[in-house]
Amino acid sequence: MEATTMLIGRSIPRMDSPQKVRGQTRYTDDLHVPGMLHARLVTAPYAHARILGVETSQAVSLPGVVAVITGRDLFPEGPEPAERARHMLARDKVIYYGQPVAVVVAETAEAAADAVEAVRIDYEPLPAVVDPVAAMRPDAPVIRPKELEGEWAEAGMHATVAGGEELDVARLPANITNAARFRRGDVERGFAEADVVIERTYRTPFVHQSYLEPHAALAVPDPTGGLTIYTCTQGQFYARNVTASTLGLHPEQVTLVPMEVGGGFGGKTVLLEPLAGALALRTGRPVKLALTRMEEFLLATPAPGAVIELKTGARKDGTITAIKARVIFDSGAYPGAPVNIALLLLGGYYRCENLDLEGYEVLTNKPGVGAYRAPGAPQATFAIEQQVDEMARALGWDPLEFRLRNASETGDPQPNGVPWPQIGLRTVLERMREHPIWRNRSSDPNEGYGVAIGGWPGGVEPCAANVRLNIDGTLSVTLGSVDITGTNTVMAMIAAEVLSQPVERIRVVTAPSNLAPYAGMSGGSKVTYTMGLAVQAAAEDARRQLLEIASAELEAAPEDLELVDGAVRVRGVPDRSITLERIAGISMTFGGKYAPVYGSGRAVITQQSPGFNGQIAHVRVDPDTGEVELLELVAIQDVGRALNPALVTGQVQGGAAQGVGWALHEGMIYDDNGQPLNPTLMDYDLPKATHLPPIQVELVELLSEVGPFGAKGVGEPPVIPTAAAIANAIADAAGVRLTELPMTPARVLEALRQRT
Amino acid sequence: MEATTMLIGRSIPRMDSPQKVRGQTRYTDDLHVPGMLHARLVTAPYAHARILGVETSQAVSLPGVVAVITGRDLFPEGPEPAERARHMLARDKVIYYGQPVAVVVAETAEAAADAVEAVRIDYEPLPAVVDPVAAMRPDAPVIRPKELEGEWAEAGMHATVAGGEELDVARLPANITNAARFRRGDVERGFAEADVVIERTYRTPFVHQSYLEPHAALAVPDPTGGLTIYTCTQGQFYARNVTASTLGLHPEQVTLVPMEVGGGFGGKTVLLEPLAGALALRTGRPVKLALTRMEEFLLATPAPGAVIELKTGARKDGTITAIKARVIFDSGAYPGAPVNIALLLLGGYYRCENLDLEGYEVLTNKPGVGAYRAPGAPQATFAIEQQVDEMARALGWDPLEFRLRNASETGDPQPNGVPWPQIGLRTVLERMREHPIWRNRSSDPNEGYGVAIGGWPGGVEPCAANVRLNIDGTLSVTLGSVDITGTNTVMAMIAAEVLSQPVERIRVVTAPSNLAPYAGMSGGSKVTYTMGLAVQAAAEDARRQLLEIASAELEAAPEDLELVDGAVRVRGVPDRSITLERIAGISMTFGGKYAPVYGSGRAVITQQSPGFNGQIAHVRVDPDTGEVELLELVAIQDVGRALNPALVTGQVQGGAAQGVGWALHEGMIYDDNGQPLNPTLMDYDLPKATHLPPIQVELVELLSEVGPFGAKGVGEPPVIPTAAAIANAIADAAGVRLTELPMTPARVLEALRQRT
Repeated sequence: MEATTMLIGRSIPRMDSPQKVRGQTRYTDDLHVPGMLHARLVTAPYAHARILGVETSQAVSLPGVVAVITGRDLFPEGPEPAERARHMLARDKVIYYGQPVAVVVAETAEAAADAVEAVRIDYEPLPAVVDPVAAMRPDAPVIRPKELEGEWAEAGMHATVAGGEELDVARLPANITNAARFRRGDVERGFAEADVVIERTYRTPFVHQSYLEPHAALAVPDPTGGLTIYTCTQGQFYARNVTASTLGLHPEQVTLVPMEVGGGFGGKTVLLEPLAGALALRTGRPVKLALTRMEEFLLATPAPGAVIELKTGARKDGTITAIKARVIFDSGAYPGAPVNIALLLLGGYYRCENLDLEGYEVLTNKPGVGAYRAPGAPQATFAIEQQVDEMARALGWDPLEFRLRNASETGDPQPNGVPWPQIGLRTVLERMREHPIWRNRSSDPNEGYGVAIGGWPGGVEPCAANVRLNIDGTLSVTLGSVDITGTNTVMAMIAAEVLSQPVERIRVVTAPSNLAPYAGMSGGSKVTYTMGLAVQAAAEDARRQLLEIASAELEAAPEDLELVDGAVRVRGVPDRSITLERIAGISMTFGGKYAPVYGSGRAVITQQSPGFNGQIAHVRVDPDTGEVELLELVAIQDVGRALNPALVTGQVQGGAAQGVGWALHEGMIYDDNGQPLNPTLMDYDLPKATHLPPIQVELVELLSEVGPFGAKGVGEPPVIPTAAAIANAIADAAGVRLTELPMTPARVLEALRQRT
Repeated sequence: MEATTMLIGRSIPRMDSPQKVRGQTRYTDDLHVPGMLHARLVTAPYAHARILGVETSQAVSLPGVVAVITGRDLFPEGPEPAERARHMLARDKVIYYGQPVAVVVAETAEAAADAVEAVRIDYEPLPAVVDPVAAMRPDAPVIRPKELEGEWAEAGMHATVAGGEELDVARLPANITNAARFRRGDVERGFAEADVVIERTYRTPFVHQSYLEPHAALAVPDPTGGLTIYTCTQGQFYARNVTASTLGLHPEQVTLVPMEVGGGFGGKTVLLEPLAGALALRTGRPVKLALTRMEEFLLATPAPGAVIELKTGARKDGTITAIKARVIFDSGAYPGAPVNIALLLLGGYYRCENLDLEGYEVLTNKPGVGAYRAPGAPQATFAIEQQVDEMARALGWDPLEFRLRNASETGDPQPNGVPWPQIGLRTVLERMREHPIWRNRSSDPNEGYGVAIGGWPGGVEPCAANVRLNIDGTLSVTLGSVDITGTNTVMAMIAAEVLSQPVERIRVVTAPSNLAPYAGMSGGSKVTYTMGLAVQAAAEDARRQLLEIASAELEAAPEDLELVDGAVRVRGVPDRSITLERIAGISMTFGGKYAPVYGSGRAVITQQSPGFNGQIAHVRVDPDTGEVELLELVAIQDVGRALNPALVTGQVQGGAAQGVGWALHEGMIYDDNGQPLNPTLMDYDLPKATHLPPIQVELVELLSEVGPFGAKGVGEPPVIPTAAAIANAIADAAGVRLTELPMTPARVLEALRQRT
């Protein structure tokens, strides 16, 4: 670890910003290739129905239509696939409203859209299962036979979970596809010892990632039977592997070209790639498939809804004595809900001797869920952080002091028994306590203040990178990770730091899957944490090679040399130097006597560096309308080393802004038949800029022992505590506990009415 | 060096063949991108003329025409560039027939072609300089003022030449742009000591590489002001650098995507890329520029013509006593002829105490020359190998014994004083002596046998590569060298050998310039020789990483492990093993505990491993028509280790076939005004399949000490001796010496007439 750094810790602008603000960045849907066909989905108008017949002949006969493909075309025999990405089209029955049943491929987007209307599908409606608690009942309609359950790894890619009891899911009712339980001590004794016991049920809806760019994929068939797929995935290798295996290809027969991600937040993993690929293989032509905004709401992969039954107890001395929870995740039509991680966080923020946490993943007739920034954490935290607050108030404790009294520390066991690695929860709480907004709380009776914390264990994944000297003396970093939130800018900074070069001399290129060194999904708060180390190692390798060549040319020992802007020079003898351009020139030329500078680095971290975020919300509640005005929001986060404080601050603000969406605005609404009621941006209430106060960010820098330059993951923690902090502020202002998200004026008003 | 090898030395088919024979390979001209414009050149109808005016308004007004660009648009001020690649369009005067003067850019290729006719250019014809000897005269018309001479490095990239006297070119007449002289001993004394002295002048014409695929380039502008250029260059980094600097861009602003090379032979370096790039930048749209076959003959880069005045002497005891030569290369309109290498070979094949070799590069009003397989060597060898033969016959020596008597050996000085590295010339001559065709010569009076040898020093260039384990347990080699003649197949074999895998498990990917590790031009007989080492090193690195992971998983020391097909296992314990797929799975996954296998290798060789080829030609000369029928051709070559004997044999056959073209068929013909007389494949006499006998190849394997597995460069030597061997066979059959190429029936007949 460098003691002092040149670039690390400086706020430099994102390298991709100029193109983006000028509208020059090309996204997947901007691509056009010769002979390209346009695909358009035919989606189900029922949440649960048997498909009796699909009549495509009229649609096929329309001008410009090349083919209409149905589920039967893709899966002529055997059961329908159980995993969403592989289940490209429904064949025998539809299991959520908006599910793709057929797809029209046509010469133009307009012809495809017209032909969709001409596809006739005969359905026999079935009773829909919409409420997850009802879905758990043994007599509930069965969405899919349990033996078809697939492994679905997306949410798992955002955090690693070990331990816990595996419950025998096969013996549970049909719609329960995953279950877990963590126990410690004796909760009944814990409740018996408690001076206060709170028991409530919390509900959170499906929340959509609502990235600016809808999903799009362009698949181009190779003459050899393979495919090149351009897509906005956050994880090219994962998307490639799933696509290849779905299509029966070898992974290397699919070249995935990762395009710009116009917002992902975990929601851009693999979705359209297999279907686009299947269509390209069937037609022998390039096929583009892009979703409309409404299709995003109908069939993309929102965060799961949750029902959390939580009971906690504490003694007057401030000790939390028991936590008992039943967490039910509404996973929609496919497995993939983050049961384990939700339980671990719910029972892991605070020391508690008696735990009994059980969790269930339940299928319903809704779109299959996916990862969304800190999967499972906002839901669990909304519950536990309100209840901790409520216990503190009930016992007369200051909510921050109560949390400090119980906060987990490095080495304390998580619910699965695994000790927390180094964590900064206590420091974050102490910084919250010191914050002027907390210390100078207003006494306006309609205003209130709430605090909450949220933590995220952080993902780890092996990766590699290389650093190449270019002919002009600049350097290129090549890697396989997709740039989200400016990660490539940070990689440039790391390479520049190691090589003592100005960052302008560093280029970062995300290579396609056939060329890139391996990288995991850009998610799980792990890009900088893991890829940063690979880039650092590759840059160190390149540095060593540069010094070796300079040493021979300058006739000086490598240890007497130093890298400076664009050159290597003999320490203390500034006129004995050689430029990087010269080194490039003599090593990359006919007859050159040095090998090209081509450093490579590999990284594997198995230790996590969890990040904690604490927020202070200041609200005004209008007692007449129930409207909650968010006046101030403070987010304090332990980020390890802030490699680029401006980017880190932006990440924290962005996460907290999404947290405001969870708290006050967002939620996908379904009627009793499973029909979505707000699948447009007119009806789905994303927070607007005017809904957000300036979000004050404070960065705490407790260096990680393993991350590059001490960095920890940043992306996920800031979304976690916001809803709980705002709920606690509402309670502070109005004396009511809101247990269901979003906390709309109607719900607040209802709570106020019930209070009086 | 492995003692025994699994794959190395085996003839496996080229990996790119199936696609090629099925017509599935896509070449540059097959590419179409949205919004693409088509460019078409307006070329000069004079070999030397002043441009008085260019009138484009009528052409611009035609439907579909987007722009007509002239030299003045590209070079508004200052002198015209002196280097061909930078001299994209003529501005003030044209210096060869067919030179591009303007270019039409239109929506369709047809519109562009039509508009070419509408561009009116007003010329003032100037006297053309066509004969290189005349061009050397002080009073010859000046093609370009000498101070504009550019550095032009292409030919230099095929062999490294050191030493020699640099003559002061500035003091020589204007059209002489390069001159060199190598001297040793005292040639006059040498001739005085000789029992036989032969003095002749040899002439060779411009010969075109005549690859199947004409040049094409597609330039796509980036929103950031850069370019992506798809092109069939043999050397992406060189083409990129020249293009970028011509256009005033940084090298990394140009991404060069190397496409399949549909034949190159040295003629595909950089030609259209800068102009295509300039047009894309000016129009802001993708522009494709492809040559017609006639344009290939008019303005691409053939081998230079040569006039070689050679005088040699030898004693009765077989000692060559003196070699004196004046080599004049007709370089066409731009510098770039291989003067030095021609002199080194001409005076270097045989030991000789007295040398005086001078060489000149002369400009004429013809297309600028370029590299063509062993640049300069067929010309020089046609002269020296005939004269050595003639001396042997004059002295009563067997031509092979005479050569063996004088052949240079490892350590003997070349004309520049540099000792020959390890060479196999003697062994090649001995194998020729043993060959059945030589031993069983027919005595038919119209038949004859000739031998000749040719050598090539071989190029060296630093390079790098990487080897990546893929998720399915296959491995990918990534490199920057363009595949010609199956080099990527050989790279796969090298990686497979090192990793003990079947070659089917290895993929080789040529990456574009923004991602690829550095590689030089695929030429100079150096791809396998140099890149093979980088791939070997990268594979060894990957192997070490594989064993390290397997060691941890199998709990065995790495030295107790062995790689077998698809797995690593404990030696002697076949059931303790781990598959490569499993290693991939545990190292490229969320939470994986090993770094991905990503080996890298860098290579630098400074030592050359020259390759020698000896040929035996058996001909029948028709005394009435002068027709020469090539009955048999034997090519024996020291290739070091033949990594893939089938590919090496194919290379040798291909080179010898081109040698037959030099000998009997090919030559670009110009009239006194510099107008080409045979710029079509109807008139330019490429040898047809029926002109070629089966070419018998024998490989001699004197292992190189440095090349991968002992390999030496293979590509260039086989073209060198063919013309001389056939000339010697004609002399043997008919008693006449042909001193001008090609040796057409008319020339043979003329020689026969002069004899009688």
